[in-house]
Amino acid sequence: MRKIIVRTTKRKEMVDITGEVQRVLKGLSLENGICILFVPHTTCGITINENADISVREDITTFFSRMVPENGNYRHSEGNSDAHIQSTLSAHSITLIVENKKIQLGTWQGIFLCEFDGPRTREIWLTFLSTNSEINKL
Amino acid sequence: MRKIIVRTTKRKEMVDITGEVQRVLKGLSLENGICILFVPHTTCGITINENADISVREDITTFFSRMVPENGNYRHSEGNSDAHIQSTLSAHSITLIVENKKIQLGTWQGIFLCEFDGPRTREIWLTFLSTNSEINKL
Amino acid sequence: MRKIIVRTTKRKEMVDITGEVQRVLKGLSLENGICILFVPHTTCGITINENADISVREDITTFFSRMVPENGNYRHSEGNSDAHIQSTLSAHSITLIVENKKIQLGTWQGIFLCEFDGPRTREIWLTFLSTNSEINKL
Repeated sequence: MRKIIVRTTKRKEMVDITGEVQRVLKGLSLENGICILFVPHTTCGITINENADISVREDITTFFSRMVPENGNYRHSEGNSDAHIQSTLSAHSITLIVENKKIQLGTWQGIFLCEFDGPRTREIWLTFLSTNSEINKL
Repeated sequence: MRKIIVRTTKRKEMVDITGEVQRVLKGLSLENGICILFVPHTTCGITINENADISVREDITTFFSRMVPENGNYRHSEGNSDAHIQSTLSAHSITLIVENKKIQLGTWQGIFLCEFDGPRTREIWLTFLSTNSEINKL
Repeated sequence: MRKIIVRTTKRKEMVDITGEVQRVLKGLSLENGICILFVPHTTCGITINENADISVREDITTFFSRMVPENGNYRHSEGNSDAHIQSTLSAHSITLIVENKKIQLGTWQGIFLCEFDGPRTREIWLTFLSTNSEINKL
């Protein structure tokens, strides 16, 4: 597998990793297929959302913090249960379509690592499969 | 890739696309494998839920609207931050299993486009990979 | 496809199925590739989270019950709309990376079936694809 390393700087933030994902793909020989993104952590997640107006990700982060408060009468002694819950409410794996050697995304879409218990050094794991082109062409 | 086009009619609604997905698959030569569904938008999503009693999707839509209110002291100036948040709370990619030329779903399951900021014209992108049958047969 | 059968014992609980998934993979000849997990139900889900301290999954289950109350002025007559909503808030499919004949997970990660309307007998469907190794090695 390939790995993207992300150093987060706040307890809660969304970090745009779209460029990194495209860069990893560029180093491979894959024309058409899929790209699997996997988060090997339990207090962060991954999502796709708007990468044009930065206030969108601030609204998402703020909402997640309000919906799942840091101090919420939890049992887990490490004090980061909010982050574990937010991690399950976002995603741990996303599958992207690759065409003509590029990750295919909608006009306004970016790929974000969602940090819920930073700052920390995080990894995103990636693997790629090529499509059996005859199947999708028929 | 293949595309399904959906015209939504309300600001919030869940549209059953199960038949459309099966129809796309029918036009291909794929016997066994996987089907990737990807949503190229940032204010809608995709989910799997009950397609028998229509009130289930009404309950889900109503709950999402109550949990993430339209007016919620957001920063994003377009006034649809609720839809961006709901988009992250649902899913942007789902992977389905194909067997004997059919998408395999549970008895009560349907595939739904979740519109959070309609009415709009939406797309679902699809790609298919065939399973290396010898792996799953051992 | 392969199936894992899980008998849940409570209305809401998270059941660790990591060992079961690794066991299914062990019976196959797959060295490197991906493992698709799919939940064929509409009132349970799947997630990845911490499997070290059991209080983490209790905090997640408790939070989900508080966020989506069992009695919430729903329309669906079967009385389990909370479970349908929680099902959409967790995930129905997760894709894992397989390397050297093992599911690759982070240090603290386990794979969990999320029961939201038990006790019931549940299934997780699995399928596997091998990576075109030359793509990921370049």
